[in-house]
Amino acid sequence: MTTLVRHVIEWIEGAVGLAENTVDGLKFGRPDMTVTGIAVAFTASQSVVEAALRAGANLLISHEGEFYAHRDRVETLEGDDLVVLEKRGLIAQSGLALYRCHDALHYRQPDEIIQGLVRRLGWEAYLREDLQVAVILEMPETTVGELAEHCKRALGLPYLRVAGDLAMKCTRIGLSAGYRGGGELCIPMFREHDLDMIITGEGPEWETPEYVRDAMRQGRKKALILLGHAESEQPGMQLLAESLKRAFPATPIQFIAEEPVFRIV
Amino acid sequence: MTTLVRHVIEWIEGAVGLAENTVDGLKFGRPDMTVTGIAVAFTASQSVVEAALRAGANLLISHEGEFYAHRDRVETLEGDDLVVLEKRGLIAQSGLALYRCHDALHYRQPDEIIQGLVRRLGWEAYLREDLQVAVILEMPETTVGELAEHCKRALGLPYLRVAGDLAMKCTRIGLSAGYRGGGELCIPMFREHDLDMIITGEGPEWETPEYVRDAMRQGRKKALILLGHAESEQPGMQLLAESLKRAFPATPIQFIAEEPVFRIV
Repeated sequence: MTTLVRHVIEWIEGAVGLAENTVDGLKFGRPDMTVTGIAVAFTASQSVVEAALRAGANLLISHEGEFYAHRDRVETLEGDDLVVLEKRGLIAQSGLALYRCHDALHYRQPDEIIQGLVRRLGWEAYLREDLQVAVILEMPETTVGELAEHCKRALGLPYLRVAGDLAMKCTRIGLSAGYRGGGELCIPMFREHDLDMIITGEGPEWETPEYVRDAMRQGRKKALILLGHAESEQPGMQLLAESLKRAFPATPIQFIAEEPVFRIV
Repeated sequence: MTTLVRHVIEWIEGAVGLAENTVDGLKFGRPDMTVTGIAVAFTASQSVVEAALRAGANLLISHEGEFYAHRDRVETLEGDDLVVLEKRGLIAQSGLALYRCHDALHYRQPDEIIQGLVRRLGWEAYLREDLQVAVILEMPETTVGELAEHCKRALGLPYLRVAGDLAMKCTRIGLSAGYRGGGELCIPMFREHDLDMIITGEGPEWETPEYVRDAMRQGRKKALILLGHAESEQPGMQLLAESLKRAFPATPIQFIAEEPVFRIV
């Protein structure tokens, strides 16, 4: 049976009810295109698009927006930006279909992006509660420093950012991915779930990190690990690639990893 | 003449017209309190509050919100959070007046926070244009790596984050502070001012950094340095402390620095 782009989208969206203002959707290409190969990535960067084309894919599924914004910002970015124009031109001329797949994965129960991260960290046995925006883990007593090293090894990270004391003991951990480090989410979560530590992707520096700093100063044991946005969500996209392979066994499917966008100097 | 809290606030706000919804204001204490000493800091962290009290200050002037949010979020944070309650209790019992001074400095022309950063970096001679939200600098050809090392030395930073190529040559630089790394601000600025690099505090990882990554992949020379939010704004608060010393010479005034909130592991 021929696989069309819309078959893949229908399979991914499945039973998930997407909100009317979802950021998901087919940004390039047509629903009735025949899929000859699928590439899956965190974001449709220039190099990911090139790699997808080299691999013979004609459908690229990416988690974040292709033009550097959560919501499409046509008016500010499209006009005359050469970086945008060149990538747009490459995608359009190559005939690559580009499907943004963000909400569909976060709305799954459990959130597939978090699930991918839990699996990559090998922490399935520690799952205690699923809050949808995060999971609560309880593990044998360890330290912030040991958990940081474990995350670096398991995710292959050159570095991560830690607020708090590396020697602090911890057992109860909140884990999420992406831009979920904000105070409005994390501070009540620390309190309501009696957490020692939160591990997530990124968030504003003056909110949760400063809360952790104050808590420590007051003798309350709290810590925060920021893995990086892409670094925290790539495992979820890799999980999607694996499940697509099972759903579409006749189609070549590959996950394309990116290097960390920052280096530490 | 006795200096009252309101004298200091009036001097700071001066001719700057603050918006009705400004985040600035006296969060603790009364306008008619006599000021016996002033402490100035990036944020009123627990340890900064303690240091201000140890130094005998009864007015603390801080740039960011004392309870981990840009706008006061009384409903979510105040209720029963022990970290909030303990800091609130310490400030209230000590009689320390706390004045949030954010917009008044960013609204000054030039923005005093950016001005403090320019001075600390020793880059006054390179100023070419003031966009209010950022300044445009033009300097003798150097490299991203050299500028990163200069920023680390001048600001005393243990690390910073760089997107782009350390060997890339650059002359035209956009410089700002705080949470000004977002794509909506930075991407048009790169384009409209023909910038090689932007240096700022922090911003979301999937916007400007990914734009820089794509530009580099396309052979367009772009780079981004993130100094850290507090790290980029502390020099501006230190500049405020210096000008307060000149305005209120009889009052003991000191700047209180904080350690970086993150460590790199």
